[in-house]
Amino acid sequence: MTLSHVRIIGSGLIGTSIGLALRAKGVEVSMADISPEAEKLAQDLMGPLPVASDCDVIVIASPISTISSVIKSELGSSLKPRFIDISSVKVNPQLQVLSTGVEKSDFLPSHPMAGREVGGAESARADLFQARPWIIDSREVSPELLQIGIELIEICGATVIDMPVDEHDKAVALISHLPQIMSSALASTLEGAPAQWLDLAGGGLRDTTRIAASSPTLWREIIAANSQALVPLLSRVIENLQDLASSLNSQSAIEEFIQSGNRGRSMIPGKHGGVARNYTYLPVVIEDKPGQLAALFDECAAAQVNVEDLAIEHSPEQFTGLITLALSQSDATKLYQHLIAAGWSAHSPR
Amino acid sequence: MTLSHVRIIGSGLIGTSIGLALRAKGVEVSMADISPEAEKLAQDLMGPLPVASDCDVIVIASPISTISSVIKSELGSSLKPRFIDISSVKVNPQLQVLSTGVEKSDFLPSHPMAGREVGGAESARADLFQARPWIIDSREVSPELLQIGIELIEICGATVIDMPVDEHDKAVALISHLPQIMSSALASTLEGAPAQWLDLAGGGLRDTTRIAASSPTLWREIIAANSQALVPLLSRVIENLQDLASSLNSQSAIEEFIQSGNRGRSMIPGKHGGVARNYTYLPVVIEDKPGQLAALFDECAAAQVNVEDLAIEHSPEQFTGLITLALSQSDATKLYQHLIAAGWSAHSPR
Repeated sequence: MTLSHVRIIGSGLIGTSIGLALRAKGVEVSMADISPEAEKLAQDLMGPLPVASDCDVIVIASPISTISSVIKSELGSSLKPRFIDISSVKVNPQLQVLSTGVEKSDFLPSHPMAGREVGGAESARADLFQARPWIIDSREVSPELLQIGIELIEICGATVIDMPVDEHDKAVALISHLPQIMSSALASTLEGAPAQWLDLAGGGLRDTTRIAASSPTLWREIIAANSQALVPLLSRVIENLQDLASSLNSQSAIEEFIQSGNRGRSMIPGKHGGVARNYTYLPVVIEDKPGQLAALFDECAAAQVNVEDLAIEHSPEQFTGLITLALSQSDATKLYQHLIAAGWSAHSPR
Repeated sequence: MTLSHVRIIGSGLIGTSIGLALRAKGVEVSMADISPEAEKLAQDLMGPLPVASDCDVIVIASPISTISSVIKSELGSSLKPRFIDISSVKVNPQLQVLSTGVEKSDFLPSHPMAGREVGGAESARADLFQARPWIIDSREVSPELLQIGIELIEICGATVIDMPVDEHDKAVALISHLPQIMSSALASTLEGAPAQWLDLAGGGLRDTTRIAASSPTLWREIIAANSQALVPLLSRVIENLQDLASSLNSQSAIEEFIQSGNRGRSMIPGKHGGVARNYTYLPVVIEDKPGQLAALFDECAAAQVNVEDLAIEHSPEQFTGLITLALSQSDATKLYQHLIAAGWSAHSPR
């Protein structure tokens, strides 16, 4: 089977991006949204659409709280209605779908892990899902729908990962929803602090609070829908903090607390899904003006090294920047020698 | 007065870096460390030293727990012993110093805010403090010692900020110690999680747990010494998390929780100590191979734009990278048009 027509309900970031990816491969796409303006924008982005034949599948890309009502209103839109959702949480939508009478065989729960800090059709892009994980739960899904779902995901360029819905929800509670909550809780303690204190903020505070800038309307739905998986994690982290608070007079208890964090952090894999790599870090001080980064990366190219990651750091009233490049140990040594020879203010890799 | 001889006790990262900065400006430096190997390494880095005259000031750069014993053993090392410390916490060291009988006029509490993820003399560098904030508490300090301290800080290239010790401790508890604790608490919940879950980790988890890799021996001292300022912050954050845990059925309560984090995050200033800038973000997809970043920054230079910050993102099994450049709005528009014209896979700035 090859996809010929996909109907997408919800023309936000994810729905529109799926539409763009499908259209780029010649698949017919029809879109609907409760907002006529949003629907129009998405249709404009999609280009002129042919008169629709019956659709192969209906993608539910609307907010979690709307899923059952969308299903009900879409049951008549196809001779053989089959559904895929794209929510960040999976147990709750499945319950909503089953409550409408739709069978498990006709609903493929899915979650493309391609979040952005911005939403809306205007932020959509056909390559949003390129090489990102896209989780499905294939259990009890009809072979036809499963094939349609996998084809759709592959057209979007994503990697299929099969995982039961309840395991999915526990996994994202841990790796996505709890980090959001911890970052927001930390950032909210900054409210009301003197500006002079915040002027002293370094990279640690910036990193830990970056995702605290996320959308409240998106996250209220995600957190509420995944509360069951979040409750034990929140209890654990609260207990952990309470234990620390009552052990502040014990250096060994504090040390064990920090060590436990070391161990957890080391479990996060490096890029390409491999095991965590111990990068070597190479600090370079540059002038904060146009062209300096380009010149630095010219040197990286000349030295034929691969930069795995990098950080830019500025201080209050500072007009130089500290660039920390992450490389393999051998590349770091090679680049360091290259930069020193070329007169750069590079410091020993570590 | 001009500094002629500074005695430094403790040849770790900070002590040795101060020594290197002073030597670079021709100031005589003598160093001592309880570890003969560490002392020897620091002396080697410092180069041959002339026979020492009486020192102008003694810099205590040893662990917080050793400060009073260092003071006692150093009282006889100078005709007029005057002290500066460099600890990350300020009330506790001051109490230790006063307990030895040293007057407030002869002790300048100070804190160079130039942490690193690595320690030891081997990581030291003369420019470690360049353009970083260096906090002092000048109250009741003799004019001579204050002048010596300011000269030392300026030789190191840092910016003097005068702040009472108790205010300092509250400020760093909020902007440095609490973020460390939250990051460690979050990372420690990852212990024991299935590897398949962690393979799904995105930038959010990586950012929020980056500082969880910090040194347990360094942080046990800092957190224990600043427990007084940390207790109310920990209580506040625990209460905040408990409130959320008991409101997971209320979308409006969750929304307010995330909004409060938005407000706190927006208080962190951008670079140069100015008010927070709303950067415009420009996503660019590049191939993950040597030379691509260089080529991208060549384009930035050609377009004459200033990159304020950037992030590199990889996914599991992904062999392309998403570079997100942060620029001013006008620079983002200019660069976007430039990159598109040059055939890059750039996406609309947002």
